[in-house]
Amino acid sequence: MIPNPLPELVLRPLVETALLEDLGRAGDLTSNAIVPADAHDGFVITARQPGTVAGLDLARLAFTSFDPRVEFTTAVDDGTRVHPDEEIARVEGPARSLLTAERVALNFLGHLSGVATATATLVDAVAHTKARICCTRKTTPGLRAVEKYAVRAGGGANHRYGLDDAVLVKDNHIAVAGSVTEAVKRVRASVGHLVSVEVEVDSLAQLEELLADPVDAVLLDNMTPDTTAEAVRLVAGRMVTEASGQVTPATAPALAEAGVDLISAGWITHSARTLDLGLDHVED
Amino acid sequence: MIPNPLPELVLRPLVETALLEDLGRAGDLTSNAIVPADAHDGFVITARQPGTVAGLDLARLAFTSFDPRVEFTTAVDDGTRVHPDEEIARVEGPARSLLTAERVALNFLGHLSGVATATATLVDAVAHTKARICCTRKTTPGLRAVEKYAVRAGGGANHRYGLDDAVLVKDNHIAVAGSVTEAVKRVRASVGHLVSVEVEVDSLAQLEELLADPVDAVLLDNMTPDTTAEAVRLVAGRMVTEASGQVTPATAPALAEAGVDLISAGWITHSARTLDLGLDHVED
Amino acid sequence: MIPNPLPELVLRPLVETALLEDLGRAGDLTSNAIVPADAHDGFVITARQPGTVAGLDLARLAFTSFDPRVEFTTAVDDGTRVHPDEEIARVEGPARSLLTAERVALNFLGHLSGVATATATLVDAVAHTKARICCTRKTTPGLRAVEKYAVRAGGGANHRYGLDDAVLVKDNHIAVAGSVTEAVKRVRASVGHLVSVEVEVDSLAQLEELLADPVDAVLLDNMTPDTTAEAVRLVAGRMVTEASGQVTPATAPALAEAGVDLISAGWITHSARTLDLGLDHVED
Amino acid sequence: MIPNPLPELVLRPLVETALLEDLGRAGDLTSNAIVPADAHDGFVITARQPGTVAGLDLARLAFTSFDPRVEFTTAVDDGTRVHPDEEIARVEGPARSLLTAERVALNFLGHLSGVATATATLVDAVAHTKARICCTRKTTPGLRAVEKYAVRAGGGANHRYGLDDAVLVKDNHIAVAGSVTEAVKRVRASVGHLVSVEVEVDSLAQLEELLADPVDAVLLDNMTPDTTAEAVRLVAGRMVTEASGQVTPATAPALAEAGVDLISAGWITHSARTLDLGLDHVED
Amino acid sequence: MIPNPLPELVLRPLVETALLEDLGRAGDLTSNAIVPADAHDGFVITARQPGTVAGLDLARLAFTSFDPRVEFTTAVDDGTRVHPDEEIARVEGPARSLLTAERVALNFLGHLSGVATATATLVDAVAHTKARICCTRKTTPGLRAVEKYAVRAGGGANHRYGLDDAVLVKDNHIAVAGSVTEAVKRVRASVGHLVSVEVEVDSLAQLEELLADPVDAVLLDNMTPDTTAEAVRLVAGRMVTEASGQVTPATAPALAEAGVDLISAGWITHSARTLDLGLDHVED
Amino acid sequence: MIPNPLPELVLRPLVETALLEDLGRAGDLTSNAIVPADAHDGFVITARQPGTVAGLDLARLAFTSFDPRVEFTTAVDDGTRVHPDEEIARVEGPARSLLTAERVALNFLGHLSGVATATATLVDAVAHTKARICCTRKTTPGLRAVEKYAVRAGGGANHRYGLDDAVLVKDNHIAVAGSVTEAVKRVRASVGHLVSVEVEVDSLAQLEELLADPVDAVLLDNMTPDTTAEAVRLVAGRMVTEASGQVTPATAPALAEAGVDLISAGWITHSARTLDLGLDHVED
Repeated sequence: MIPNPLPELVLRPLVETALLEDLGRAGDLTSNAIVPADAHDGFVITARQPGTVAGLDLARLAFTSFDPRVEFTTAVDDGTRVHPDEEIARVEGPARSLLTAERVALNFLGHLSGVATATATLVDAVAHTKARICCTRKTTPGLRAVEKYAVRAGGGANHRYGLDDAVLVKDNHIAVAGSVTEAVKRVRASVGHLVSVEVEVDSLAQLEELLADPVDAVLLDNMTPDTTAEAVRLVAGRMVTEASGQVTPATAPALAEAGVDLISAGWITHSARTLDLGLDHVED
Repeated sequence: MIPNPLPELVLRPLVETALLEDLGRAGDLTSNAIVPADAHDGFVITARQPGTVAGLDLARLAFTSFDPRVEFTTAVDDGTRVHPDEEIARVEGPARSLLTAERVALNFLGHLSGVATATATLVDAVAHTKARICCTRKTTPGLRAVEKYAVRAGGGANHRYGLDDAVLVKDNHIAVAGSVTEAVKRVRASVGHLVSVEVEVDSLAQLEELLADPVDAVLLDNMTPDTTAEAVRLVAGRMVTEASGQVTPATAPALAEAGVDLISAGWITHSARTLDLGLDHVED
Repeated sequence: MIPNPLPELVLRPLVETALLEDLGRAGDLTSNAIVPADAHDGFVITARQPGTVAGLDLARLAFTSFDPRVEFTTAVDDGTRVHPDEEIARVEGPARSLLTAERVALNFLGHLSGVATATATLVDAVAHTKARICCTRKTTPGLRAVEKYAVRAGGGANHRYGLDDAVLVKDNHIAVAGSVTEAVKRVRASVGHLVSVEVEVDSLAQLEELLADPVDAVLLDNMTPDTTAEAVRLVAGRMVTEASGQVTPATAPALAEAGVDLISAGWITHSARTLDLGLDHVED
Repeated sequence: MIPNPLPELVLRPLVETALLEDLGRAGDLTSNAIVPADAHDGFVITARQPGTVAGLDLARLAFTSFDPRVEFTTAVDDGTRVHPDEEIARVEGPARSLLTAERVALNFLGHLSGVATATATLVDAVAHTKARICCTRKTTPGLRAVEKYAVRAGGGANHRYGLDDAVLVKDNHIAVAGSVTEAVKRVRASVGHLVSVEVEVDSLAQLEELLADPVDAVLLDNMTPDTTAEAVRLVAGRMVTEASGQVTPATAPALAEAGVDLISAGWITHSARTLDLGLDHVED
Repeated sequence: MIPNPLPELVLRPLVETALLEDLGRAGDLTSNAIVPADAHDGFVITARQPGTVAGLDLARLAFTSFDPRVEFTTAVDDGTRVHPDEEIARVEGPARSLLTAERVALNFLGHLSGVATATATLVDAVAHTKARICCTRKTTPGLRAVEKYAVRAGGGANHRYGLDDAVLVKDNHIAVAGSVTEAVKRVRASVGHLVSVEVEVDSLAQLEELLADPVDAVLLDNMTPDTTAEAVRLVAGRMVTEASGQVTPATAPALAEAGVDLISAGWITHSARTLDLGLDHVED
Repeated sequence: MIPNPLPELVLRPLVETALLEDLGRAGDLTSNAIVPADAHDGFVITARQPGTVAGLDLARLAFTSFDPRVEFTTAVDDGTRVHPDEEIARVEGPARSLLTAERVALNFLGHLSGVATATATLVDAVAHTKARICCTRKTTPGLRAVEKYAVRAGGGANHRYGLDDAVLVKDNHIAVAGSVTEAVKRVRASVGHLVSVEVEVDSLAQLEELLADPVDAVLLDNMTPDTTAEAVRLVAGRMVTEASGQVTPATAPALAEAGVDLISAGWITHSARTLDLGLDHVED
């Protein structure tokens, strides 16, 4: 099971917005012209390349929000690693509705499976260490909650969801405050007891300043693996350690081997390629 | 100038949704804690890699919708090809507001510039031919209009915007109708005089059936360059010709040289990598 | 069947807005005061004058969105020409809900049947020709999609749905561009391959300029039947021909006989009289 | 001054919905293609037929919501009776914005002026009596508040705005309750002290039953002028009297002369013809 | 039965807004982590103090809007006076959904039962007189309709719902008009025949001015019981009389005994304490 | 300064909803009838009882969203403790707009100042200790963010904002998991590194189980002051300690003296009395 599945009350508005974006004012001119209202059909959704599935609830809602008579049956669960030609789900129902809603369903499923697949690639790259992969706030506008869900589906962990659920003190904040110490002091005077605090540091000097009064987590930004390892040694378990900066499947292993708890990467959400999916008639 | 700029009435709800998604219920805990309300600041947005810019209006609105006191000044226009470290825009105003809104601004600008850059790559690959690059309906849910704008910024052309502004008869429609001829007949009986009609064909046989009574455009799907050239010869200017199917910068030139009018590619919208952008303090 | 029925996802928000507009903050004070919560009732909706029906889905949704226990049964389909006292539909269910929702249901059904009836009057007037009647963008704010559906229910065809699904070059555009030729040139450089182009001309001179490089359709505005016939002869099938300007059932036949493909009229949407409907108790 | 002008907070959502309905996803393809971004223009809105103006605030908002740089100047106020070719308002500003927004502006202004004009026709027909013309809940879905405003602009009075601001006991309610007396008793037990109560009666017998314990107003439905006069005599000033049922400019005078306080007509809102308006270039 | 129950179309948006406010972007982290997706549970909602119940429909919708599989069964109706430990309702269904939705359900039920209980306290205080207790526009922003429903559930009556369903002339209006007489004259010239009019007076002199031409109701503001009694005597049944100003259970009886029809109090909506409710496991 | 002021983008929709709730369909019938459109006026908002101010931004927006010409000037800031008759703010502008918007402005300002005042009462009661007062999720539906802001204005701290920004393991969760240990284990396996975790315990035995592997905070529910002191001693600074359960100004001091970090109370949000405010003409 993917941790923390999203409630339908959160998913449904996204799906309806996407359907209305595609339907426009007049709906599906082509299918309405060609497909009889009483025609019934069935399609299988398959992977056309290897990947990790995410977004099945959104795909299901794309069909059933448009027409509740459609039946959507999953062959796998979110988080499953599929191989080419493996069946993911099938839909049956009024042919018009299937043809009208399929693009929105596949756009969601392909996009989120792409995020999950990118995440899984990084997860695999550091599987020999204790490091976990996590996301950032560099998400597609409007899709943050579902992209963060897809990161979980790919085996990753989530960073904060927004500006209001945790504190992340960054370089520009430290510059305004004048020092790490002053920035942390201002945060402590302001936020509630359940707000976690993370501070981004660029150097071991900044880290040492922070260690005088540790917070919940430290973001080691753009450090070499060697410096990262030294930072982890200095922290000595007093804070969660996160590494970031130009993380790729090639660079992640060295960072992970430096002993950090987390490696964060923006590209798993902002630059993942869609997972290629097929929609084919059910064979008789 | 990019053709057909989008009205602010269309852009503003996207920006406000993205800001509220990031602000959550409580707003920017970090900046509010650290940055004095009366602090003033300035930042420069630069490209960190070569690419084509798109989304400046969305970036501007991200700042000014959050705080009308922010001034956003562009150094280039959408559609400009920028080199690494080139300045794209700068913002000045209340420091808190700049730090709160910057992520949403960069998420839009990076994503759309990524789409424009991907488009431009394909445009360059076929620049020695008359072929134009165009997009599909494989767009990110909720962002179709702005992604299609970014395609134009990258030098591409737009396919239909949705199910309701043009007819595209696809393989599943032809299967339901029984033949290309019957499918086209049903469409003609149904749609208005300003609705263009395109038909997707998989083979020269289907194309010849269609040529008995041509429509506005034909989509030559997954054909080899040789078959595509033969198809273009058969059409002989009676329809707009579009090629599609696994189009990449490597495969596009041969298709273009086959003489088609348009080459469409889903990946320029659904799988473009974000353009890497920097946000740095204005140097004093 | 009416071409291109509208999806419920498009209709439902219109109906809920109309119900909430009538319910206000406190709901139906009168029915709630007088009608017991468990009373059951049934009503028949009948035409009180001859006309063409449109809007049955909206009428049904008006009842069932308010109370899903209501059963709405149609006696005829949209597009049917009914005679006075002919039954159109009947509703059964909780009496309170029927009395609360009936005005919204009848407001939709009467308005759209009025549009369909006005359209049918024009359709009849030109039935001896090949000309089809079509609508304009002169629709009631907020109701464009359903009014265009009602035009189809009355036997008419649809012009473009808005500013974004086709090009219509009008007198003011030509004035800005300086000539028909220049206006068309600018359009061709800007729009995608599935965007149809129509140009409005006021004179045969303008038409001849346009014929040097024909577009998809020409709007012959405010021409006499004789000039219209001459224009049709000049076009010689190279463009769809549309006549407009003060079209009434009296003037339409002469224009139609001039040989145009389409006759457009704003009054069928902006000035149609509602179809008078009755709501009467089911006889025991 | 028209009584009770509507606040912009109520008008603005209607205008934005109408603009987005026309702009669709991509905006004004035609004007964007042809009209330079920096072109400036000016237009005069004139009446093409005699009528009463209503909706100037909506017309102004249609332009300024789309582009705040547009200046909209009125030549007359809502409620003014204009003659053919009389100037109503003029707009100046970016030419693109003027051409994009003009249809929405004219659709509102034409529709509401049509309602005002229809109202004024009835007002004139009974001007020799004390009777006032009033509207009903038979309004266009979504436009009730602005149509009721237009009725006031035409010199009419308003009936209740919805189901929740006053009680109107109709024939079906009386049938459920068993008698006028019982229906009124139930209402009195249910509603607050500022909720007015009107009862519809079909006969003098029902009226006499009601007069045993009068309410605020009585609706004399579908009575002849003679019966109406008798009813007014019976009421003797103890209730406001309203006549309704197939009211036209031809039938209204006799009803008014019967002495009623109010004559209500659905057609002034649901079947008014739009007022024909022209939009012409400002002469240099 | 509580008069005028609210339709679900009015309640549902309030409930969905409240659920989304609590769910945020990511939903119930705690229950999703701990409670298996297939666990089933049941809870009883009980009063922990004496009070009057209101809001059961909102509580039910809080559970069923989140998860339609939840069954919500009431043990009492809105308006029931409950004693400590008395069962009000019970819910059964997926354990996760019960734990996720319970806070929103109880927040609504506690708040509205608090309003009903406060109302009932005042109702009891004047039960030996004919005076009824009524509410004001001093309600919690966004919750007016449901708070006014809760007032009815507590045995109270409703004042107007907003600025648009009745006229209430207050001291500042009289000051602008110059006199009570002029203020009433302006109102009469402006509003429709079903709009009730109430005037607030501060002194017997103002009351006498008003009595020269009485309106529907008079608000006797901040008068002593003796002055109130004198005012009631002067009115002599020609208007509904309402007393207001610092009304408490201690001061209400004397005002009621002065003979007024209504006593209005803002605190029953703006300052009512929530009714303390328990949510306990169903005993096996 | 109150920590973490809320952005206008979050406040504005609340204010517009409240204004539209009061304006209804037709707006302010009374002020529109009586007050000339060009009348200008000014009012002072004063406290009528001692209290702590919160909500000035909402009050300002209530006036300026309705009419941007209104000027709202504050005499004090949010968080100020005011005495009876002290001026809080003044408004000047069109008299109609002031009278129309004042009730919504005062409803927000009174409600939030009531929450701030209730908070301040508890804050004062424990001022001789290190304990801070904090809020809960027992807030008014729809107003959580602004009520939590008002708690800060009153000198209190904030608990979590919703179900998604922190974990709070309660008795029902522990019952499902079987033990505190198992519940915490499931949470740790599920949530991200910036999600704080608090566990509610009912007994010292549960506390000792939790101390084997401490989380961020512990909620000591319904314990006596003596047991609370023992719990604080056991925790020995390893977790933040929070006491809750029937907290009043009378019971809070003993709990605070027991040494807890936080005392949480639902009634400061769900049962605070509004702060009584006056709106009086500016003296000439």
